[in-house]
Amino acid sequence: MQHPFLTDRSRGFLPSPVRDVWEASMQPGVISLAGGNPDLALASLDWMADASARLVRDRPHEVLQYGSGYGMTELREAIVELMAAEHIAADVDSIQVTAGSQMALDLVTKVLCEQGDTVLVEDPTYVGALGTFGGAGLRVEHVAMDANGLVPDALRERIRRLAAEGRQPRMLYAVPNFQNPKGVTLAPERRPEIVDICRQAGIPIIEDNPYGMLAFEPRTVPSLHELDPEHVVYLGTFSKVLAPGLRVGWAAAPTWMRRSLQLASESTVICASPYSQAIAAEFVTEQDFRAAIASAAAVYGERAHALCTALDEHLPAGSTLTKPEGGFFTWLTLPEGWTTDALLDAAIDEQVVFVPGAAFCAPGEGESELRLAYSFESPERLAEGAQRMGRAFARVAASRPN
Amino acid sequence: MQHPFLTDRSRGFLPSPVRDVWEASMQPGVISLAGGNPDLALASLDWMADASARLVRDRPHEVLQYGSGYGMTELREAIVELMAAEHIAADVDSIQVTAGSQMALDLVTKVLCEQGDTVLVEDPTYVGALGTFGGAGLRVEHVAMDANGLVPDALRERIRRLAAEGRQPRMLYAVPNFQNPKGVTLAPERRPEIVDICRQAGIPIIEDNPYGMLAFEPRTVPSLHELDPEHVVYLGTFSKVLAPGLRVGWAAAPTWMRRSLQLASESTVICASPYSQAIAAEFVTEQDFRAAIASAAAVYGERAHALCTALDEHLPAGSTLTKPEGGFFTWLTLPEGWTTDALLDAAIDEQVVFVPGAAFCAPGEGESELRLAYSFESPERLAEGAQRMGRAFARVAASRPN
Repeated sequence: MQHPFLTDRSRGFLPSPVRDVWEASMQPGVISLAGGNPDLALASLDWMADASARLVRDRPHEVLQYGSGYGMTELREAIVELMAAEHIAADVDSIQVTAGSQMALDLVTKVLCEQGDTVLVEDPTYVGALGTFGGAGLRVEHVAMDANGLVPDALRERIRRLAAEGRQPRMLYAVPNFQNPKGVTLAPERRPEIVDICRQAGIPIIEDNPYGMLAFEPRTVPSLHELDPEHVVYLGTFSKVLAPGLRVGWAAAPTWMRRSLQLASESTVICASPYSQAIAAEFVTEQDFRAAIASAAAVYGERAHALCTALDEHLPAGSTLTKPEGGFFTWLTLPEGWTTDALLDAAIDEQVVFVPGAAFCAPGEGESELRLAYSFESPERLAEGAQRMGRAFARVAASRPN
Repeated sequence: MQHPFLTDRSRGFLPSPVRDVWEASMQPGVISLAGGNPDLALASLDWMADASARLVRDRPHEVLQYGSGYGMTELREAIVELMAAEHIAADVDSIQVTAGSQMALDLVTKVLCEQGDTVLVEDPTYVGALGTFGGAGLRVEHVAMDANGLVPDALRERIRRLAAEGRQPRMLYAVPNFQNPKGVTLAPERRPEIVDICRQAGIPIIEDNPYGMLAFEPRTVPSLHELDPEHVVYLGTFSKVLAPGLRVGWAAAPTWMRRSLQLASESTVICASPYSQAIAAEFVTEQDFRAAIASAAAVYGERAHALCTALDEHLPAGSTLTKPEGGFFTWLTLPEGWTTDALLDAAIDEQVVFVPGAAFCAPGEGESELRLAYSFESPERLAEGAQRMGRAFARVAASRPN
């Protein structure tokens, strides 16, 4: 039973399903396809060590004191340059720096949503967003995706049905590129349509783009933010392209939201660490960040290929596996009747771990789906992991009534 | 007019009154008695530069990846040691690490308060807490303080009156040591009484203690948390004793709150920067932190003395000035009829800046009060600042009708 001092809404803060399988994944010999960690071996640690020390010695009064509520100017400019490398235009004045993009989501929720409000998300969606929304006491509505991302007709229909119930969604939260958890990308031709639907319905869009720079092949896809900068809040992060431990992310926000976002940020953390901010800024201004990210993306591409190719040989008939074109994840839909409960037990016995899909989905959904991450293991280990998954599939198949 | 997408509660996020006078305080030649910044010249920057570089080289997979939701074990243990140096007992398992103690306050608010709830604060109180509470849509009730801190009878009376209106406060937020902004300390003999009143009324206490280690003379004062660890949440920070730019703080929380606090933290920022956490931990484990803090406290003591002594010579008759025994601030109450509006203009003309008191007080209160910070300037500059304040007092006195 919950302590009487705790709020009802605090029940909405969700445990991470990655942490649920953490213990199993840390056993010696286990291959983890669970956590979406970037591979730091791809980063230039010598540069970062030198830059860190130099910043403390040369600029202590900037990097070790309290900083601006919006973020350091040099970082906000660097972020615009980083976004430009992904062909996304943004205005320096629009950038609100945060302690990771999870915090940007917390801030946006604070300024856009009151307790009891409704928000729209993709089905499946990033589980960390479900925790933020749950803890804010929001009602979450999952909208269908297919292999081309969010389905415009499903979105229209959901908004219409909610309106009939007198419920006006306060925002749509979406991860259009190499989505976590499903690995799919919102098709370019759908993007203006999604923006139009939401604009007409008076629903601001939160576009979360942690993986967009990690495309396996060069591409130019318009961000939702560019399509309507006054209607779409863009969230970005250094966690996947530099280092999550720095905790530096940002929002590129519409004009009307900037002041509220800044004040909300000051009330939440005063400011993101100026020290981390300065290191992130130097990554853009002093390093060949385009080459560093491109080479990391190529490595992730090999890994995605290694995992998906090896898995293909072992999948139960009737399964569907996302073939990601970027990012860290693929998504497996098992044939009807399969559940991840039995599969996870078998997988752990075979020394491989994944994240069951239910945590990302609407209640009661996702029981036969699962997320597989390929970001952290070598191609050889991923192929071996796929073999082990194969043995787990076989075990479950053998134990099922026919 | 507020944009229609923005929530009502977002109006409660308050601008910092320090930032209001920021521009004036940054003019060349101006002496700032406004911001409560620690003096980094007191920290060992060489050690921090070396430690920062070494952590990146030797332990990248710990400090640059995502970390535990509770915080790093080595830091949680170091925090208990740091608190012990202030004679405060705490349990390692109680420690929730946060990106600064402002964030701890945000988390506590999330797990204890629903929109529309009532919270109790001291009058005056830390303005950053007012922003957090305002943005959460809470109703704030200021309770009277005197030279010995929060007044038990005023607290009892306020709780009784609110109960008569059907309002049960969800928490009491208090800064018992060297309070920001008033500089006063809650008298030791009042502490058990305050805890008893709140326990009996079913009101958890949030004890914010950023300045407790910066006592000018050795002392042993019981923390409210120790008096009832299951009823009092303690908030601490490295910002005043090491460096605010690292953004490392914590809560020492009752057993029943820990899991909720951890999940709220994950939903807010995933984790505090493990890199900053590791640097903060090394400050405690590898440096003579007791000596470093004691020497910093002695310096702040000299500064407090320099400012208060010099001010005493210039105060308008009938003024009251707090004589702080620690921390960064003193509080000046001007005689009846004086307002800080006119005084601030005169002070800026004389090239000295302070923070008007109204921002810290209940609406309509604090018009003749002001906060003066002595943490950042040298004794000579503080004495000069007091001279300038003296000229500002004289100007205002000269312009007042008699």
